Amino acid sequence: MLKQIEGGVCAPRGFRANGVHCGIRKNKEKKDLALIVSDVRCRTACVYTTNLVKGAPILVTREHVKDGYARAVIVNSGNANTCNANGVEIAEQMCALVERYTNIPASDVVVASTGVIGQELSVAPIAAGMPDLVSGLGDRSSAAAEAIMTTDTVKKEIAFAFTAGGKECRIGAIAKGVGMICPNMATMLMFITTDAAISSQMLQRALSEDVKRSLNMLSVDRDTSTNDTLCIMADGLAGNAEIAAPGADYRAFCRALHAVTVAMCRMLAADGEGATKLIECRVRGAKTQKTADLCAKSVINSNLVKAAMFGADANWGRVLCALGYAGAAIDVDAIDVDFASSAGRVAVCRSGRGVSFSEEEAKRVLSEREIGIEVDLHGGRRCATAWGCDLTYEYVKINGDYRT
Amino acid sequence: MLKQIEGGVCAPRGFRANGVHCGIRKNKEKKDLALIVSDVRCRTACVYTTNLVKGAPILVTREHVKDGYARAVIVNSGNANTCNANGVEIAEQMCALVERYTNIPASDVVVASTGVIGQELSVAPIAAGMPDLVSGLGDRSSAAAEAIMTTDTVKKEIAFAFTAGGKECRIGAIAKGVGMICPNMATMLMFITTDAAISSQMLQRALSEDVKRSLNMLSVDRDTSTNDTLCIMADGLAGNAEIAAPGADYRAFCRALHAVTVAMCRMLAADGEGATKLIECRVRGAKTQKTADLCAKSVINSNLVKAAMFGADANWGRVLCALGYAGAAIDVDAIDVDFASSAGRVAVCRSGRGVSFSEEEAKRVLSEREIGIEVDLHGGRRCATAWGCDLTYEYVKINGDYRT
Repeated sequence: MLKQIEGGVCAPRGFRANGVHCGIRKNKEKKDLALIVSDVRCRTACVYTTNLVKGAPILVTREHVKDGYARAVIVNSGNANTCNANGVEIAEQMCALVERYTNIPASDVVVASTGVIGQELSVAPIAAGMPDLVSGLGDRSSAAAEAIMTTDTVKKEIAFAFTAGGKECRIGAIAKGVGMICPNMATMLMFITTDAAISSQMLQRALSEDVKRSLNMLSVDRDTSTNDTLCIMADGLAGNAEIAAPGADYRAFCRALHAVTVAMCRMLAADGEGATKLIECRVRGAKTQKTADLCAKSVINSNLVKAAMFGADANWGRVLCALGYAGAAIDVDAIDVDFASSAGRVAVCRSGRGVSFSEEEAKRVLSEREIGIEVDLHGGRRCATAWGCDLTYEYVKINGDYRT
Repeated sequence: MLKQIEGGVCAPRGFRANGVHCGIRKNKEKKDLALIVSDVRCRTACVYTTNLVKGAPILVTREHVKDGYARAVIVNSGNANTCNANGVEIAEQMCALVERYTNIPASDVVVASTGVIGQELSVAPIAAGMPDLVSGLGDRSSAAAEAIMTTDTVKKEIAFAFTAGGKECRIGAIAKGVGMICPNMATMLMFITTDAAISSQMLQRALSEDVKRSLNMLSVDRDTSTNDTLCIMADGLAGNAEIAAPGADYRAFCRALHAVTVAMCRMLAADGEGATKLIECRVRGAKTQKTADLCAKSVINSNLVKAAMFGADANWGRVLCALGYAGAAIDVDAIDVDFASSAGRVAVCRSGRGVSFSEEEAKRVLSEREIGIEVDLHGGRRCATAWGCDLTYEYVKINGDYRT
């Protein structure tokens, strides 16, 4: 009963969005300011980066959603507003601007920034951009998704419809990813809207549980950002009986939320900086969940595995090596490894030893855009999936010259 | 009283070495088999990779040095002899070949292999190469250093003279590095010889202490290899009174050992796969040694910092970011960061905030071959140095196509 629909963050009833170019970025073709507003106050839950260096917007947002409610999200790209002396002040001014132009109290505004660290963010272009941003609010999820992009090559939005309490509910999201992606809490920036009625407590619980199996299993480059923010707002306009306890409705909500976050993880990994391939590592047969998680993430994070995937090289020894230093107690002599894609499947390792395979066939399998690395630890029944991408010349190029 | 001298592993009295092409590698120009022998039995200490997947040679070496003695080292490049069903058998055959051609008991032979994982290593070319390898034994440290290279672009050897108990002692080493370098115990392969007389216990203690401040602080790509082996052999021929307890002689020995290992770390980092720059991160003002270590290694390991260094981009926000996720309890609002090289020094961050600096000057500083990233945590008195290199197109190229 889960159906993908159009509309991104504006698919759920009661949400409008927009994105404009206000001038934080020099390139006038590139939108750099986004706004999402709800017709009514929303139950709101967030998770943030675990990095000790936290962007100033996170400090302000944390205060604003302390009461479990928010009504708007303002986001700029082009500047992270992090490690600046006046960062908190600027983030508060952004929220005040939302209040001035929409009458939504500043204390109900979620604020986020993404871009370069350590350069002062001027509020002037943001103030100048507000009239257009607000007057254009509507069914414009795509404009908002565009405005939060940095080196993303495609905008990320998605929405699903599901049923809870006999009512059709909707959930939608926009996100940005690319570099500094190794969330321990959330990815760079993701904003989810839903019209399902759900209590604050169940909303936070659903979000906190979900990230363990979604965004925390995503890694583009192992660098946990200073500004990661994942925010979900629920305005309750679907008319379902409020989800206030575990049960069938809560499970339906969690399934829909997970569909959103996993779809986003795949999009974020596939569009990792410089990436040409989405890599999905599926580990099964683990004794504990922690072992499954550590092993899947260790493979996804290995530069040597990532570079081999870029070269479509079935160098499975690097997968074994990454499993060996994952920090989990595993029996390395029991490990099986397969490479899989839409072009087929190749068994490359059985019981920790190489098996003979056709290099030609392996090359064909690994030349696809989506690669599965399948690991069976033969040690138990837990499994985990992690998402990442290959390591390419382009990653080095983008990151060797990001600020210029 | 520490003087750099020529001769590598053959600088200490009693050691001979050689390296030949025996045919494990197709390229006849590339030596692939090395041997080091001592005239007498040596006190021998080793440290190995912490990777759970361990090369078969490590299993055999561990048995052979259990009694604290060895007399020869045989090493091949081109094949790691790891994850193969007959790995231990082949490693034992290599030791038996040494016995056959030198009369040194197989149980006194240290064996190591480096190269591709998971391809069977044939002993035939090694057997065929033994006569030349043994007949050419002499003052040929360089030939041995060449024979253990994989994608290394320069051979690594060094030697020092020092004084203990009134006698001139010598210590020398050869090493190989490049990829899969993030030792938790030792780097890929390093063999150290010394003619100092020192007890087995003090030798192991000196080595185990030393790696904490040397090889464990080196990271090329965060991938801890399956085959890392660091071995030191002391034949006692310098004639000094045996170093059997802490004291001035032990300190002199440790200083010489540290001079060897640090020089090697710098060489290994500078010649990291695809590297154009040596990066040295010096952290001071840490409350604990663990904090200092975690912070220095986190900076050295960040792909984003490494790529910025490749681009000579003073993107200090990435240094702050890496410190923030290092896993240490630090006050991010107290951090100072400078970039330094032979071209000068630029202060880029004070108290966790950016300070204005000349981009042109920073570019000049960061365009050198050796870059220092200097971090003051202002939280205590402990310090640490870690070594790494930049992340380049060439790293991706080498590792996207290593087996072909």
